[in-house]
Amino acid sequence: MNETKKISVGIYGAASFVAGKLLELLANHPLAGVSRLVSNTFIGQRVEAAHPSLRNVYDMTFTEYSASEFASACDLVFLTKPHGQAMEIAAELIDNGLKVIDLSADYRLNNPGVFEQWYGTKHTKPDLLKQAVYGLPELNAEAIVLAKLTANPGCYPTAAILALAPLCKEQLIDTDEITISAISGASGAGRSSEETQYLNVEQNLKPYKIGIHPHTPEMEQELSALADTNVRVSFVPHIASFKYGILMTIHTKLNANTTEKELTKIYENFYRGKGFIRVLSDSLPQLLDVVGTNFCDISVRIDRHSEHCIINAAIDNAIKGASGEAVQNMNLMFGFDEGEGLPYGQKLKNR
Amino acid sequence: MNETKKISVGIYGAASFVAGKLLELLANHPLAGVSRLVSNTFIGQRVEAAHPSLRNVYDMTFTEYSASEFASACDLVFLTKPHGQAMEIAAELIDNGLKVIDLSADYRLNNPGVFEQWYGTKHTKPDLLKQAVYGLPELNAEAIVLAKLTANPGCYPTAAILALAPLCKEQLIDTDEITISAISGASGAGRSSEETQYLNVEQNLKPYKIGIHPHTPEMEQELSALADTNVRVSFVPHIASFKYGILMTIHTKLNANTTEKELTKIYENFYRGKGFIRVLSDSLPQLLDVVGTNFCDISVRIDRHSEHCIINAAIDNAIKGASGEAVQNMNLMFGFDEGEGLPYGQKLKNR
Amino acid sequence: MNETKKISVGIYGAASFVAGKLLELLANHPLAGVSRLVSNTFIGQRVEAAHPSLRNVYDMTFTEYSASEFASACDLVFLTKPHGQAMEIAAELIDNGLKVIDLSADYRLNNPGVFEQWYGTKHTKPDLLKQAVYGLPELNAEAIVLAKLTANPGCYPTAAILALAPLCKEQLIDTDEITISAISGASGAGRSSEETQYLNVEQNLKPYKIGIHPHTPEMEQELSALADTNVRVSFVPHIASFKYGILMTIHTKLNANTTEKELTKIYENFYRGKGFIRVLSDSLPQLLDVVGTNFCDISVRIDRHSEHCIINAAIDNAIKGASGEAVQNMNLMFGFDEGEGLPYGQKLKNR
Amino acid sequence: MNETKKISVGIYGAASFVAGKLLELLANHPLAGVSRLVSNTFIGQRVEAAHPSLRNVYDMTFTEYSASEFASACDLVFLTKPHGQAMEIAAELIDNGLKVIDLSADYRLNNPGVFEQWYGTKHTKPDLLKQAVYGLPELNAEAIVLAKLTANPGCYPTAAILALAPLCKEQLIDTDEITISAISGASGAGRSSEETQYLNVEQNLKPYKIGIHPHTPEMEQELSALADTNVRVSFVPHIASFKYGILMTIHTKLNANTTEKELTKIYENFYRGKGFIRVLSDSLPQLLDVVGTNFCDISVRIDRHSEHCIINAAIDNAIKGASGEAVQNMNLMFGFDEGEGLPYGQKLKNR
Repeated sequence: MNETKKISVGIYGAASFVAGKLLELLANHPLAGVSRLVSNTFIGQRVEAAHPSLRNVYDMTFTEYSASEFASACDLVFLTKPHGQAMEIAAELIDNGLKVIDLSADYRLNNPGVFEQWYGTKHTKPDLLKQAVYGLPELNAEAIVLAKLTANPGCYPTAAILALAPLCKEQLIDTDEITISAISGASGAGRSSEETQYLNVEQNLKPYKIGIHPHTPEMEQELSALADTNVRVSFVPHIASFKYGILMTIHTKLNANTTEKELTKIYENFYRGKGFIRVLSDSLPQLLDVVGTNFCDISVRIDRHSEHCIINAAIDNAIKGASGEAVQNMNLMFGFDEGEGLPYGQKLKNR
Repeated sequence: MNETKKISVGIYGAASFVAGKLLELLANHPLAGVSRLVSNTFIGQRVEAAHPSLRNVYDMTFTEYSASEFASACDLVFLTKPHGQAMEIAAELIDNGLKVIDLSADYRLNNPGVFEQWYGTKHTKPDLLKQAVYGLPELNAEAIVLAKLTANPGCYPTAAILALAPLCKEQLIDTDEITISAISGASGAGRSSEETQYLNVEQNLKPYKIGIHPHTPEMEQELSALADTNVRVSFVPHIASFKYGILMTIHTKLNANTTEKELTKIYENFYRGKGFIRVLSDSLPQLLDVVGTNFCDISVRIDRHSEHCIINAAIDNAIKGASGEAVQNMNLMFGFDEGEGLPYGQKLKNR
Repeated sequence: MNETKKISVGIYGAASFVAGKLLELLANHPLAGVSRLVSNTFIGQRVEAAHPSLRNVYDMTFTEYSASEFASACDLVFLTKPHGQAMEIAAELIDNGLKVIDLSADYRLNNPGVFEQWYGTKHTKPDLLKQAVYGLPELNAEAIVLAKLTANPGCYPTAAILALAPLCKEQLIDTDEITISAISGASGAGRSSEETQYLNVEQNLKPYKIGIHPHTPEMEQELSALADTNVRVSFVPHIASFKYGILMTIHTKLNANTTEKELTKIYENFYRGKGFIRVLSDSLPQLLDVVGTNFCDISVRIDRHSEHCIINAAIDNAIKGASGEAVQNMNLMFGFDEGEGLPYGQKLKNR
Repeated sequence: MNETKKISVGIYGAASFVAGKLLELLANHPLAGVSRLVSNTFIGQRVEAAHPSLRNVYDMTFTEYSASEFASACDLVFLTKPHGQAMEIAAELIDNGLKVIDLSADYRLNNPGVFEQWYGTKHTKPDLLKQAVYGLPELNAEAIVLAKLTANPGCYPTAAILALAPLCKEQLIDTDEITISAISGASGAGRSSEETQYLNVEQNLKPYKIGIHPHTPEMEQELSALADTNVRVSFVPHIASFKYGILMTIHTKLNANTTEKELTKIYENFYRGKGFIRVLSDSLPQLLDVVGTNFCDISVRIDRHSEHCIINAAIDNAIKGASGEAVQNMNLMFGFDEGEGLPYGQKLKNR
């Protein structure tokens, strides 16, 4: 550990909710120090003004954006700016010699036309887009190791792709008949809207954006690549009365005769050596087991009554679906152990 | 109102959770009085020992079971006993001249063989089973009016059947490709198990009984009758971190070209005059709008990306899915207005 | 019941949270109809735009404010406008011959100077203030029956005054040594602020406005009148992670030797015939028993270790602490039974 | 770090809730490994049977109790057995040369008579009791460093003593007039009772054990020692609808004229260098800022209206009030940095 050089990171959008989660994780990271926090709305204020739980943990003040100052202080910048805004900033930071992990959607979709169709914004950096790497560490580690710009996946796609990857890769399912029902905690909706008021969320549950959620093409892009054929999903997201987590219930149709045991074995082989993926053979995923961690728990079952194959996956949307995955990507990009600084990362390292 | 004779009701299993909800509703019912509360475990104790919120509302004590004493005191008995136990009791009460609303599963499935297959218990009263009426008031009111023994539907089937009835009746969907993802509040799991401990439920969400939940054949029985063909569903229930409510997300495939607008119109026509069904054309169902009421909110949408038809339904599992539906059935069985004594029932009456 | 003339009521501020709770209660009231809903921000929109759970319950549209149109349509107006704004409106409505129940603080404090000191606003209607009646029905029913303008109490004062009234009236405690710790659900903070975002409330608990909450002088005013001496309280309110309810824990010092049993008897005598007050002798108040009702549960205990007298009280802040108390006041002002239309009101009537 | 010898620890009662929290913390501790997990009820089962979230984190199986096997495998045993049972076990472990941190109440009260009075059990090891050290690290670090048997404080006493210590030490308050209202999350009540069922906890809040909670003498013992006079508290605990955390609101009377600013300064001086104590000068403690951490946030305010001094404190009852404090004690007992392995411990170390 002592021989590894410690790196220095910055965050742009550092007063945001997801930046807060990043700061929580980075505070326990032995090989990365935070040297610059940029927030347009909190310039000059101390960390605890935006993140009261981090009082005394960081003795820092938010500053104004400057690509060159980022470059002189940092090796890497985490971008937690809204979709559409991250595009140009990422380009400028890369131009200044920085590595970037972008937590927005701007560099996730390979095809700028698809981006425009689902996000309603023209992509202004198609060349840089070609160099960006999709940052799902369990599937894409080799490219991430070499990446300058890593597009951190969306929370729903993280769970959906991990849940379906083995079946797609092994071409075991009808790729035109995948229905995904996903329930996310309220943190997935970000902070500060009428919809996310406590009285509107607590003891509530509701579907939203049926068939139009922009995470849909992201799932389809990665799964199609794995399946080597077009994958189409019917995706219904929901917001529920809990803070953190996504539970995903996926119905598919198998195109071959197999058993739960064989399917589970396929998943175990597919994810062998991937410490943050836990394939459950004798229980089902639940939020309680993953919230606060970087784990993705997955089960694959056959409903013999309806002959459907049902895959469940659970993650912490704010960690494995955002900040934790970003740290995992950072670890890969700087040659650290993949779980370095993450909850239970040290345990997994020792296995 | 003054001309309608007030009836007298009893409850067997009166210390149970669902009995508590029934007592809450009946306390506000102008035409039904509670005259007998039977509980084997609370004999001699006062109502508030089992239902502290009802202190001073009912000045009553739990008594021992006696069919003849029920008969001398009551017109109707609500049976809230576990599956398997209700069977014989219902028969004895009917023999004593009482009307019965059974909230267990014992008289819901027409076919005793199917009952045995899913509940693991032999049905000992197949003759009485033939006379029992399935108590889904919006679909079966004429039979319920004449019923002596009404089988109160399960919570999930209430939502699923109401959500799919118009599509099945109009034969608009592929009845072999229905996937149902249902999320229930913790009250659906009853009281008092390790699984329903606060620490295990709060901020948690998990699937259970994939493909083996015994509410499956109940849905299929009623939907098959409506569709006049075999309906098969793939049903995945979940327990989530809220007390009351079921939200159901159903994926189906349309077998004809149609629009959301036309489908919504079909639903509106199907449920015209059914005050507790609200078909939503410009919003989606959410628990917040139905919890504490006897409403079932339904929306029907087409996901143009995947070409699936997606139906959402929301109910309060403890009211529309149990106690409220039972009161609604009681109202029909005694010639009262269908909404009498239920929340907003008076408003609906005046429309 | 048939002989009582049905009244017609209006609400100003009808899109507010508390107006929604009022509308829920009034929908089940047999003797009051809602004829006019005024909201400056929802003019021309339907009820369900602000209160989606009331879709199909009210077939009404929000209109603009006009005192004369209120007067031609209504017998009574509920005012749910913010402090400071209600003052003038109430006066205008009274001038137009209407009865008014004001749910703001504007007419609660007898002394305009005290009002100005705690609310930072000058009272512009001191003459009308003299005619206003403090609407705590259990203590003030005779005056409320005759009132034209009833000041509906604050949520915390409702609980605190009911909890301490018997001890003050009987002069059993040191009126200078009363400490009140009160925990309110998030609905007490109203809708729509950063502080009431789900992520900031859920699983959280915090004190606020220590020693400066403007409900303090309201408690002291009413308790001083009962005690016939100056009462001073040290009041610390908290906001916690639940939607509805206030639980209050009060420490006092007895100035005479007595027992829990004697104290409980004093409370029972004091509240004899007051159906919504439940004095608990063998258990302690909890939110679960009062939320959704107009009950106030109270216990009085002696901590023999510290020799303090500890009073606990629980109410639903949005019902007994606001909308339910307003309906109770309306019932008194129009000669109805006190519990008419309220949850369990019919049961209490029959006792 | 490399020069410090790594220690080996065991847990007796390892399937308990608090043991689960300990295992979560220890999994991220660089200098302590877990080598033995003893549970009478889970013998032979794997860690995930009791702690599903720790699947793949610990590759271990619960074993039977044996003092000698603990001694051959471990340097230290954490005892998470119920009060009364820990007494003898601790003695046996100490006799076998182990260090022990006891999370029960058995060695917290210096006076065996007081223990018997509040816990209803005779203390069978009065000699060992004399050697036990009360493990509140911020107040007692020197003794803990030398301890063989450390009595880990109760959750409420941790907060109460830290909140009142500076005022008692400086003799600034009337030590006979301290009222404590404390609200704990449901995890404080342990697992598995009817009272801790989700339906009974969620959206609920209630006081319990007024004046008879056995944490009372523990607070008084430590505060009396600090104040050098008898301290008496009136303590009312509550259980509320959240999982983790204690918020404490304390009313006291100052015996000298002072200001909030001076009092805050006294607290800051008292806790200088104690990284887990955060004295808040410009905000109030809230659970959100401490849950998941080992922090204790404290504020001291003067209510100028009532002339009371009000102290608020917030901790995570399961971490700073149990498992985290235990790890902090372990760190002291083995010469590690006090915050080693704890959340943000590394950050605090670097200050």
